[in-house]
Amino acid sequence: MRPYDIILKKRNGEALSKEEIEYIVFGYAKDEIMDYQISALMMAIYFQKLSKEETLHLTKAMINSGDVIDLSKIDGIKVDKHSTGGVGDKTSLVLGPMVAACGVPVAKLSGRGLGHTGGTIDKLESIFGFSSALTEEEFVRNVNEHGIAIGCQTRNLVPADKKFYALRDVTATIENISLIAGSIMSKKLASGAEAIVLDVKTGNGSFIEDTDEAFELAQEMVDIGEGMDKSTVALITDMDQPLGNSIGNSLEVIEAINSLQGNGPDDLHELCLALGSQMLILSKNCNNEEEARAKLQSSIDSGSAFNKFKEFVEAQGGNTKQIDDPEKLPTANHKEDLIASDDGFAERICAKTVGMASLTLGAGRETKESELDLSAGIVLHKKVGDKVTNGDVLATLYANDTNKLEQAKNELESAYKFSNTDIQKRPLIFGSVDKNGIIKNEFQLT
Amino acid sequence: MRPYDIILKKRNGEALSKEEIEYIVFGYAKDEIMDYQISALMMAIYFQKLSKEETLHLTKAMINSGDVIDLSKIDGIKVDKHSTGGVGDKTSLVLGPMVAACGVPVAKLSGRGLGHTGGTIDKLESIFGFSSALTEEEFVRNVNEHGIAIGCQTRNLVPADKKFYALRDVTATIENISLIAGSIMSKKLASGAEAIVLDVKTGNGSFIEDTDEAFELAQEMVDIGEGMDKSTVALITDMDQPLGNSIGNSLEVIEAINSLQGNGPDDLHELCLALGSQMLILSKNCNNEEEARAKLQSSIDSGSAFNKFKEFVEAQGGNTKQIDDPEKLPTANHKEDLIASDDGFAERICAKTVGMASLTLGAGRETKESELDLSAGIVLHKKVGDKVTNGDVLATLYANDTNKLEQAKNELESAYKFSNTDIQKRPLIFGSVDKNGIIKNEFQLT
Repeated sequence: MRPYDIILKKRNGEALSKEEIEYIVFGYAKDEIMDYQISALMMAIYFQKLSKEETLHLTKAMINSGDVIDLSKIDGIKVDKHSTGGVGDKTSLVLGPMVAACGVPVAKLSGRGLGHTGGTIDKLESIFGFSSALTEEEFVRNVNEHGIAIGCQTRNLVPADKKFYALRDVTATIENISLIAGSIMSKKLASGAEAIVLDVKTGNGSFIEDTDEAFELAQEMVDIGEGMDKSTVALITDMDQPLGNSIGNSLEVIEAINSLQGNGPDDLHELCLALGSQMLILSKNCNNEEEARAKLQSSIDSGSAFNKFKEFVEAQGGNTKQIDDPEKLPTANHKEDLIASDDGFAERICAKTVGMASLTLGAGRETKESELDLSAGIVLHKKVGDKVTNGDVLATLYANDTNKLEQAKNELESAYKFSNTDIQKRPLIFGSVDKNGIIKNEFQLT
Repeated sequence: MRPYDIILKKRNGEALSKEEIEYIVFGYAKDEIMDYQISALMMAIYFQKLSKEETLHLTKAMINSGDVIDLSKIDGIKVDKHSTGGVGDKTSLVLGPMVAACGVPVAKLSGRGLGHTGGTIDKLESIFGFSSALTEEEFVRNVNEHGIAIGCQTRNLVPADKKFYALRDVTATIENISLIAGSIMSKKLASGAEAIVLDVKTGNGSFIEDTDEAFELAQEMVDIGEGMDKSTVALITDMDQPLGNSIGNSLEVIEAINSLQGNGPDDLHELCLALGSQMLILSKNCNNEEEARAKLQSSIDSGSAFNKFKEFVEAQGGNTKQIDDPEKLPTANHKEDLIASDDGFAERICAKTVGMASLTLGAGRETKESELDLSAGIVLHKKVGDKVTNGDVLATLYANDTNKLEQAKNELESAYKFSNTDIQKRPLIFGSVDKNGIIKNEFQLT
């Protein structure tokens, strides 16, 4: 086999065989194929696409390029939830304890944030003493003892993906839905999940703005999961405005705590019920959505989800006093309000711009090496559809570095668009994809 | 400027600016841009194509990446002829002296052969003592004193092209007509030509089999030439069967000598008249084709073209006794005939297969490092359309290495296809392209 022939074949629109795909993935992972050949192939794939079968072969080869985590020592059906990332997305912090409180094991590997999107591990680290650096043994023991553990990747999972992604990132070949789906799913599957619930974000704060494309990506990922005999369900959810009201690490932990106590924002709570019920169904913990939603709601009402969160934080070394009294979490020295200068309705709050403003305040990482300010961030007091009166506080900015406060405020202001007339609330969930196909929810986007 | 943005722009189908193209060409020539980014860009260009303007910017940037030869010390309008390469194409050996004998300066840089196509320099080196290694001073002096010189490239012409070509060659991105046209024309224009006559070959022995594509390539090259204010004319000519009867270095010199003496094959003679008359017109030596053809014919009839060839060979150190008595040129120790086993008509003689058989005999180079056998080769006694009777000699193979003779004979035999019925002769010239557009000759291909 020669890389040249494989590039030529794909360039000419032919399907690659399992053997050819393995040759490429393993060869590149082992530095035996030159990166200039791989980048040409990636561009040919961008134009000629990959079939369902090719995408499955690619994902399997990616998984087999490195370690695969064995979760068989954990009792029960391990269901993983994965979000494609967004602004203010603290879902895992709320959903994990809820699901665990319902008796479904949560064995989650999470990452750190980059750019305008945050990461679960960063958020949890605003709790004093919390550590995600668990050995595989500790990780398994914590799940078995407490029903939940959230660790950071330490093993050599899907090394081929790192190489492919880094190359695609500098050669304008990221935007192929099969390659994106293969990249995400290979990491989930190598992490040992037996069933997967995907939260595919759509809107300007996510990496897929177009809703139809988000459905396509969801379909590709479901096809991969099902193709590997792992039940997979995807919800397509809104990321055109931030999720919930808080953006920033300790601010999001506070919001998660509120939510676990039944006082969180509606959209965050609803998303947790929707994703959580899929997790309960896939893990055979519940038979249908109604039953699952009731069970999840009662985990909030009874306090069992909140207690599970505390138990989980304590098990990973975190200071639970900060959970009982969130004012003890890191707090910024300065805060400043963004004030409405006119009457109207919030028509749009651009999630990406809010994320960038939050990044400016220090709540995110510009590069992988950037230091985070765990207490910096933004709290929104108005969401899309809300009535706004001249003088209302639209949002509050939290910062320690006051030099950037003015810039962040201007950025945040530019995220808002107002209307004189009443605005329909944006839908939170656009639809779902599972092995039976796509279901699109009915509504009119304004 | 960032390579990433340029790749993205082209990937999305946008036109690149002059500055962006220069940034890419100069940056890559200086090793400042990574080859994996260039190969991704080349694949994006394969799919999204280059406009006329982009192709012109590319060609100019390629030329400016290295030395440009100054032929201003040579009197008269310097017209260069370039063939895209084929099997048995000894046109330059005949055409150069003919045109020079008519008073048009011929200052030609030629190359060596690779694969199934031959090179002018190799052929000339079958004449004892002949040297193409002229200094720029010698080259100019020879043209001024003798009207003709054929040298090999020594200067650093179009170094960017070498890098781009080598990368495209291993990433399946050769086949873009703008990149091919830019590559050829940048080298011709850097060689100092003031006007260019192109012989664009079509058929299986050339690198563009499809005739329509050959017209497209010709149009691109004419556009580039005219875009740089160099009058450019292209003829689209047949390379489905070999040109003339002889294939192999000394065998082709013998055929060229015969042709210069008025005893060459019809197709070679006709092609020299057709290309030569364009050269005479572009150099303002003649006003029209009729006048030019008559002048070229008389250079043969009067012996002036043959004498010019001898003068040229002598000026470059060659032994003219071999020209007067071609039997003194290198001769193979063994020869073997390919005999017809049936009656019929030659319907096809696959030029590429004949070229490969000749390569097997040692007449060509498998790799750049291969040694040539200057006396090896093939002489065809039947061309397409000729009547063939059982027992006729179809062709004669010449070899020193008898080990390969049988293999070459089998290859050569497989090049022939016969018909029971009379076959129309293949046209030699399919049409032309100049600044006024395309003219396609009328005929029916069987």
